[in-house]
Amino acid sequence: MSQFQPTERTQVKRLPKRGRYDSETVYQILDTGFVCHVGFSVDGQPFVIPTNYGRSGDTLYLHGSAASRMLKTLSAGVPACVTVTLVDGLVLARSAFHHSVNYRSVVILGTARLVDDPVEKREALRLFTEHVIKGRWADVRQPTEQELKATTVLALPLEEVSAKVRTGGPVDDEADYGLPVWAGVLPLETVAKPPEPDPLRKSDPPLPDYLRNYSR
Amino acid sequence: MSQFQPTERTQVKRLPKRGRYDSETVYQILDTGFVCHVGFSVDGQPFVIPTNYGRSGDTLYLHGSAASRMLKTLSAGVPACVTVTLVDGLVLARSAFHHSVNYRSVVILGTARLVDDPVEKREALRLFTEHVIKGRWADVRQPTEQELKATTVLALPLEEVSAKVRTGGPVDDEADYGLPVWAGVLPLETVAKPPEPDPLRKSDPPLPDYLRNYSR
Repeated sequence: MSQFQPTERTQVKRLPKRGRYDSETVYQILDTGFVCHVGFSVDGQPFVIPTNYGRSGDTLYLHGSAASRMLKTLSAGVPACVTVTLVDGLVLARSAFHHSVNYRSVVILGTARLVDDPVEKREALRLFTEHVIKGRWADVRQPTEQELKATTVLALPLEEVSAKVRTGGPVDDEADYGLPVWAGVLPLETVAKPPEPDPLRKSDPPLPDYLRNYSR
Repeated sequence: MSQFQPTERTQVKRLPKRGRYDSETVYQILDTGFVCHVGFSVDGQPFVIPTNYGRSGDTLYLHGSAASRMLKTLSAGVPACVTVTLVDGLVLARSAFHHSVNYRSVVILGTARLVDDPVEKREALRLFTEHVIKGRWADVRQPTEQELKATTVLALPLEEVSAKVRTGGPVDDEADYGLPVWAGVLPLETVAKPPEPDPLRKSDPPLPDYLRNYSR
């Protein structure tokens, strides 16, 4: 199984048994999520901004308007951190202290590279769309040259990466197991509700299969 | 309606009509979410870490192990950014370019204060529990002095705050509305699945009402 090498900065120190460095776990978390939080600093002030992403092998792609401050800042080569978090459930213990959350997260440290090769850039745009809705790309009007110019794409290498995973039920103090308090896990899931067609539509194309049973 | 004053750093510049500064919108987003992403820098490298939070008026509380690097760093007074993001739906346009996401996010900039007053600290712990599962606090074993000591609580003032909200259907180029492409919104929602009692339980207390119809 292929592994990312933990560094001083990515090694999970708090609750180290939750740390994971194998690429299978990292890829699975990145491919299940579709919103990341991007951290970067401007004049010493950190900012954390939510955005979408795509992945190809060990490259994470970010994109947005060419006017975006975040993308301008990152493409200047400042250090970045990209975090993806999936929440799987609430963990209810018998004591307030031992309550927890089941989650899977990936933290990526690195410096982004501006993607200016038109072939890689177009492919990254395909990856963004397909990452969020698999099957969508082939159905939609493709980007024009002008739209490509208005879009900035950045690539962040998956090199300094770690995952952190909590699963399972509560871990209570021995003395608390006898307390008459309901304990266990409340699983949480993101589900799609019925699709809402655009009220401004001029025709009524059938609902695509990829929206019929959308899940992540 | 009470308003947060936008600053140079929190004013939404990209797509300014999505920016919201009223406290009602900010509170609603913070109270609907329960996972935030905390950004801070160590030796010039930003980190973005997911964690839970609680809110009381214009104070956001963070907490965790007294051994947490994040909390130690933040309590030393470094600038922080806390972001809460709710994803409400996928926006499918007729062109790849105009695809979007309906979301609500809050970005808080500031410097955290270590909460050492025992009354405020205990109240913050109650807020964390109640923020995630309303009604839970009264049922569980309360924190001991030792547990309080092992927990660090930080307070971040809601002062430099902005929200960003996208709602509604796709906004396509005029020429694209005639394309035979399904367009609209796929709403997404976080739902609770059936609660899973702890296999290690020694008694079987009834399922509390607050878990029966859990929603956010």
